[in-house]
Amino acid sequence: MIELNFDKTGGLIPAIVQDHKTGEVLMLAFMNQKAWEATLKTGKATYWSRSRQELWVKGQTSGNLQIVREIRIDCDEDTVLLKVEQLGGATCHTGHRSCFHKKMENGSVRIIGKPVFDPKEVYGK
Amino acid sequence: MIELNFDKTGGLIPAIVQDHKTGEVLMLAFMNQKAWEATLKTGKATYWSRSRQELWVKGQTSGNLQIVREIRIDCDEDTVLLKVEQLGGATCHTGHRSCFHKKMENGSVRIIGKPVFDPKEVYGK
Repeated sequence: MIELNFDKTGGLIPAIVQDHKTGEVLMLAFMNQKAWEATLKTGKATYWSRSRQELWVKGQTSGNLQIVREIRIDCDEDTVLLKVEQLGGATCHTGHRSCFHKKMENGSVRIIGKPVFDPKEVYGK
Repeated sequence: MIELNFDKTGGLIPAIVQDHKTGEVLMLAFMNQKAWEATLKTGKATYWSRSRQELWVKGQTSGNLQIVREIRIDCDEDTVLLKVEQLGGATCHTGHRSCFHKKMENGSVRIIGKPVFDPKEVYGK
């Protein structure tokens, strides 16, 4: 088991998620020790949900799992970078491919791209 | 001024830094409101140093500034993605192009790539 430095940030480290083929940054989430271990064991990206305070297998509800293809760790071992295959083609709960679909332009924000799926159909709400 | 949600994470939000041309993820740092405003105002990536507890213009010591070429904000506005031009060709204090130069392979870690500069020469220590 590779040890990460969870202490520095109070038990949670940021995980950057990148499309393993295109390099597009899809989302950022947080991991605790258990989420890290589950990710390594299962090969499915698993995070700690700060809002729900529970382990969160990304895509468990929608079916849009993230299959981990490569893991990078940063110099001081307090951040990880997951290169994933995003099942279903979209990461964001809005249906957009990436959560980073808001682009700053001249002091305002423009939405980039169109949703890949309809959240109402996927999440039933 | 675009308002970000600093409250959710106690005043600091993660900033993912990506090379604006290659898409390589270079580092992750944190911003508070002042770092965000300084980044917008100056066009040079500015963070909050958690270890030194002060504003940190990345590259101020080494000269390897990060010139911000594009800014993306995530769906719930608590994480930013900076696409930058990394002056000097390397982000990491080790001299590696990216801080994420440790790759997991079969349960151990392998260093990817060679340093672009010698930290002793750049930082004088």
